[in-house]
Amino acid sequence: MAGRRGLSAINLTFLGTASAQPSLTRNHSALALRLNSDVWLFDCGEATQHQIQKSTVRMGKIEKIFITHTHGDHIFGLLPLLASMMNGAGGTANGIEDPRAHGVQDSSDPIEIYGPLGTRAYIRNGLKYTHTLLGAPYVVHELRLPSDPPDGDYTSLALHASESPNGRNILQTNGVWSDVYHDAIVSVSAAPILHSVPCVGYVVTEAPVPGKMDPAKYKPHLKRTNTPMSVMSRLQQGESIELSDGIILQGPPRRPGRKLVILGDTYDPSPIAELALSADLLIHEATNAHLPVLDSNTKAEDTFESVEERTKSRGHSTPQMAGAFAAQIGARQLVLNHFSARYPGNDHVDPTAKTIMEAIARLAGEHYSGTITCARDFMSFDVKEHV
Amino acid sequence: MAGRRGLSAINLTFLGTASAQPSLTRNHSALALRLNSDVWLFDCGEATQHQIQKSTVRMGKIEKIFITHTHGDHIFGLLPLLASMMNGAGGTANGIEDPRAHGVQDSSDPIEIYGPLGTRAYIRNGLKYTHTLLGAPYVVHELRLPSDPPDGDYTSLALHASESPNGRNILQTNGVWSDVYHDAIVSVSAAPILHSVPCVGYVVTEAPVPGKMDPAKYKPHLKRTNTPMSVMSRLQQGESIELSDGIILQGPPRRPGRKLVILGDTYDPSPIAELALSADLLIHEATNAHLPVLDSNTKAEDTFESVEERTKSRGHSTPQMAGAFAAQIGARQLVLNHFSARYPGNDHVDPTAKTIMEAIARLAGEHYSGTITCARDFMSFDVKEHV
Repeated sequence: MAGRRGLSAINLTFLGTASAQPSLTRNHSALALRLNSDVWLFDCGEATQHQIQKSTVRMGKIEKIFITHTHGDHIFGLLPLLASMMNGAGGTANGIEDPRAHGVQDSSDPIEIYGPLGTRAYIRNGLKYTHTLLGAPYVVHELRLPSDPPDGDYTSLALHASESPNGRNILQTNGVWSDVYHDAIVSVSAAPILHSVPCVGYVVTEAPVPGKMDPAKYKPHLKRTNTPMSVMSRLQQGESIELSDGIILQGPPRRPGRKLVILGDTYDPSPIAELALSADLLIHEATNAHLPVLDSNTKAEDTFESVEERTKSRGHSTPQMAGAFAAQIGARQLVLNHFSARYPGNDHVDPTAKTIMEAIARLAGEHYSGTITCARDFMSFDVKEHV
Repeated sequence: MAGRRGLSAINLTFLGTASAQPSLTRNHSALALRLNSDVWLFDCGEATQHQIQKSTVRMGKIEKIFITHTHGDHIFGLLPLLASMMNGAGGTANGIEDPRAHGVQDSSDPIEIYGPLGTRAYIRNGLKYTHTLLGAPYVVHELRLPSDPPDGDYTSLALHASESPNGRNILQTNGVWSDVYHDAIVSVSAAPILHSVPCVGYVVTEAPVPGKMDPAKYKPHLKRTNTPMSVMSRLQQGESIELSDGIILQGPPRRPGRKLVILGDTYDPSPIAELALSADLLIHEATNAHLPVLDSNTKAEDTFESVEERTKSRGHSTPQMAGAFAAQIGARQLVLNHFSARYPGNDHVDPTAKTIMEAIARLAGEHYSGTITCARDFMSFDVKEHV
């Protein structure tokens, strides 16, 4: 995030919103977070690079990739994306040199990949067996659980030629992974969430931002004491200024930055609740819903309880569960995501699809009174600043 | 191929025709061969399952998958396809049983996968690190080169729960892999072709088919001797029949079946030339072409020779090389495939694209006088029987 002095825009673009299998209207999981022009990707299901090609997200701007869990529908697009992003190649014919074969540890910052145990091994094995050479370095930081081995790479294969040896194995403190990344204006923490396999949720927090300032409140004092107007920018940053007549002007206090909570698959995200408190935006899965009448696949014996039980048994959530968690953490806004292929993703153009997705949102609203949106592929919006 | 008595149709459907990176008009490599209703897949680049969804190919009918080489653009779609085909799942929440976790070695025939060394290891590692459970068995047969280890799995990981232990390591005889599969009506052989990494070409041969029969030639003899007309079907199969008056009727000799040669990436396929002789159809890559004037990316110093040299150095072919090989083996028809992303795949609707693809076909025609077609995604045609 070199050179970024502050975030003018935080944009989210959903590249894939399907659970398990893709449909004609929803691709596998992937979400692009744009911090000014930098792109961070959360999960990378198959054909994410295809979705990027069809979106306004620029592949060359991806600098970090966060994996929630290593299920295929969240990671099968990672290796092909890396190959395309990093000028991957499959080698040369006999006797011809390819500098990539000797490894690229150039001065550029490596693409950073975060994920649970197995992320590094998956990537390293996949690159090896596909003979993939990369034109730039990458590094994998793993978020290790107390039950995981604290060291090692979880594979006996040696580092890939383009893999930085600086991949960290990040252990928990008090049940969470604090500040796995931070710079002056944004930080990322993570915590486990319960699913059928190890899975993490990410919390992206903008550093406190300058408060709202009313210039009219300061100008008369500056004029009276012949203080240059340029001090206004220091006041804006929250500093205090002593004037020549001894009066002290105090800039407005900083406001909290924006806080985004991006969860992977889960049937119970409570271990991340404290870290997620007061999120401006919560992205929560809602794989299955009980939609009698509306959903022709509904079985006669289905009830809200039985559908919830079945959904949880597979490690997933219903809209009601997502709404309840949004209420629990006091989230300002909830985006439902990761829908079964039976819930169509063309609700912006198809009235039947709209009826279904609105019904899903209403179920989440039984437990939550904030704004609820159902994600669809290519949905893109800016996360508003606090007023 | 259980229960198939003969092939009424051999259909080819191109699911992806791009080299390296996908474009909006070409996906990564994959080709569906339909033998009656059975589907065999050749290569499986990323998003092949998406292409299948958009085609008339039925995923549930895939029974064999042949990998030419393990470069990512030919194999990155394999694991997600297996997961979708075989009711893949990511496990269950704590304490709940999933029968798939104990392995599926049921009575159904396993999906058979053929490929060079590393195919088995790639699949096994990928399934392990993504916690993928499958609802049906699979088996991987590897075509081993003399320089490969003759035994072993090329990975220290144990068999996947759904992996059949009957995967063969098939060694060469006289430089080729003969009859890696055969049944009563079709067989598959393979041979190495030269690329930057181990790569194979496949030859699919239909068993000899009944000859053309002129019933008028036989009927008078049958009537004269009161022989039941039902012997016509034996004659049709090429049998000879002795009539009551001692005359012997000889059915028409069988004709050769259809022969398809499906090559992976190559800068020199000559090791497969003998096996490929007199193919009815040759599918040959043509990754790069020199198209002065037509291709705005052409550099001033480019010549046919320099483009061919550069193309070969990366392990690939020009259209002229493909045409020369088609002529060398006496192929009846040549389909060019595996094009650089700069060559558009919408030549059926875009006149500019049509001009470029026609120019590429003309280059192949400099050395070959048979029918030449440039593949595009979703192109589908039947391979005609011999007349």
